[in-house]
Amino acid sequence: MKFSIERAVLLKAVAQAQSVVERRNTIPILANVLIEAEGSDVSFRATDLDIEVVDKAPAMVERAGATTVPAVLLNEIVRKLPDGALVTLAENGSSGRLTIEAGRSNFSLATLPREDFPVMASSDYASNFSAPAPLLRRLFDKSKFAISTEETRYYLNGVYMHVADVDGQRMLRCVATDGHRLARIDADLPDGAEEMPGVIVPRKTVNELRKLLDDDEARIAVSVSETKVRFATPAITLTSKVIDGTFPDYSRVIPQNNPRKLEVDAAEFARAVDRVATVSSERSRAVKLALDEDRLVLSVNAPDSGAAEEELAVAYGDERLEIGFNAKYLLEIASQVDRENAVFLFNSSGDPTLMREGSDTTAVYVVMPMRV
Amino acid sequence: MKFSIERAVLLKAVAQAQSVVERRNTIPILANVLIEAEGSDVSFRATDLDIEVVDKAPAMVERAGATTVPAVLLNEIVRKLPDGALVTLAENGSSGRLTIEAGRSNFSLATLPREDFPVMASSDYASNFSAPAPLLRRLFDKSKFAISTEETRYYLNGVYMHVADVDGQRMLRCVATDGHRLARIDADLPDGAEEMPGVIVPRKTVNELRKLLDDDEARIAVSVSETKVRFATPAITLTSKVIDGTFPDYSRVIPQNNPRKLEVDAAEFARAVDRVATVSSERSRAVKLALDEDRLVLSVNAPDSGAAEEELAVAYGDERLEIGFNAKYLLEIASQVDRENAVFLFNSSGDPTLMREGSDTTAVYVVMPMRV
Repeated sequence: MKFSIERAVLLKAVAQAQSVVERRNTIPILANVLIEAEGSDVSFRATDLDIEVVDKAPAMVERAGATTVPAVLLNEIVRKLPDGALVTLAENGSSGRLTIEAGRSNFSLATLPREDFPVMASSDYASNFSAPAPLLRRLFDKSKFAISTEETRYYLNGVYMHVADVDGQRMLRCVATDGHRLARIDADLPDGAEEMPGVIVPRKTVNELRKLLDDDEARIAVSVSETKVRFATPAITLTSKVIDGTFPDYSRVIPQNNPRKLEVDAAEFARAVDRVATVSSERSRAVKLALDEDRLVLSVNAPDSGAAEEELAVAYGDERLEIGFNAKYLLEIASQVDRENAVFLFNSSGDPTLMREGSDTTAVYVVMPMRV
Repeated sequence: MKFSIERAVLLKAVAQAQSVVERRNTIPILANVLIEAEGSDVSFRATDLDIEVVDKAPAMVERAGATTVPAVLLNEIVRKLPDGALVTLAENGSSGRLTIEAGRSNFSLATLPREDFPVMASSDYASNFSAPAPLLRRLFDKSKFAISTEETRYYLNGVYMHVADVDGQRMLRCVATDGHRLARIDADLPDGAEEMPGVIVPRKTVNELRKLLDDDEARIAVSVSETKVRFATPAITLTSKVIDGTFPDYSRVIPQNNPRKLEVDAAEFARAVDRVATVSSERSRAVKLALDEDRLVLSVNAPDSGAAEEELAVAYGDERLEIGFNAKYLLEIASQVDRENAVFLFNSSGDPTLMREGSDTTAVYVVMPMRV
């Protein structure tokens, strides 16, 4: 195998591949990236056995072939090469080494045979459709903060992507929850997604997928089966197992008729929560909201360190209410609001609270209160 | 005590004070900052018993007085207050609380009595002089990387500041070494510093001092005794114990007659060292330099991961030489060079190597070779 490739192109492909590789590996080949040169393309493939990413890049291929080298090391080397360099990678079958040349720099890396590299079994995808990158970006960006990190409830360790019925209209929906808060984000259902089975996309896959979604103009090809999900751009294919479990029925957690409505500037609210939370104890992080006619008082009372209070002018017309929340949860949902005011809908101080962005019902958040 | 102060002014003073406070404290009062309001100034004092910093800021003092509150918490609160806010701090003697008000935000913090706050004993300073901030900045910035972190050799855990004789001329000199490398930086001796006793300024003091030296126009008042050193601007006074030990005789470590001279672009050299070191094993980080007629080949050979080689065009006219170094040490001394070429002077592959910036002999570095 021998090919030459622009440093920037190589770096992009290798960086994407190496981020899938787990840093602590007991199986040496899983630390490697599989490089395959053929025709006018080189592909870089990495896997942790749950996720596989293949990145294809144009190159001048002099001699077709394939080998594997340590992904993190290769990425480090390419990153340090001078910008604009032309990089030549070559493997001489007998030496068991891959040489990397750029200008006056010269590297040789130990290889492992390509035959040892585990290639993910292909899947029969029940559903294939394509979606604009911004649509998927919104679905996952606004839901992933609520993914649970508790490994015992493994079925909450991802985003539940499925088709939902909203007032007779079918929508593409992402839901995540950790039992303390929940995010439910809807988008127009792309053509061809009607039969998509509901799948739980693992946290790591969501993070890797995010890198494919930066380009506003890109369309992402999505394929879904009961066990796998695949996202692809012309250059990058990300295939992942989905979490083998049943996502709980979240709909009964979402309050339907909370009567008390608070409207507040989300950024101002977040800053005030952050300020009063400064004095809260590390463990509880409890913030009290006291609501009265167009007036919100945020307060924290920590016997050890002190107390804090801040008043905000808000829109609120219902009766007096005092309710407590974890400051971190309030901050996280407030930071999801990007355009409009945050609208909170309360019932009593013991009931789940709903938040949405203005009148937009395609993004709703639920947060459980805590005693204060 | 009651005073009002601009948020930016307060933040600057509190930030400087809290950085001296140790994060883990068994003595509660040491986590606090002592606030003293009197006349038209408020001073903020913090200490870890080895270093004391006092920061004076203008304020509208309504009621003189003093109290102490947790430094880190106060800093966090002030940091989160809106830019431009006017902050009012008040203590009502009976409550044992300090209230902080800014706009619609309101905090109250637990206090500890000012009487419990340890104030550093004053010292008879043998030497008092003033020096421009850039002069001190250069002395400490260029030497501190070589400070030892080994606690058993506590007398190397700082920068040795003293008066040295250079060809009959008295200079202000800073030296630091960890036994593997050494930095020796000279500057013109400020008036009045002739009688200064040599002192070892501890690492933490060097880092805190650095914050006083950013202003190119500032003059720093320096006071030195056998046991203490003090650096002061009109606003900030930093007093520190010095390390109670004898700095070793470093002069015999500095090679005087290394005959083989290499001249190389420092930035280019550093980048090449960084590149080839990528493949070196975590532990040794050894890089080999092979020198020949105007040619330097840097190489690393790590049996596990691979090999790397890079050639640089340099100025070198002596006989062939191969010598090995720790890559980290080479990178650190190369990054000290800010204007000119790096000049290396070698003897044999087993002898200490000297580096300086061009023909400037007021900053010299020594690095020990390693077997490769």
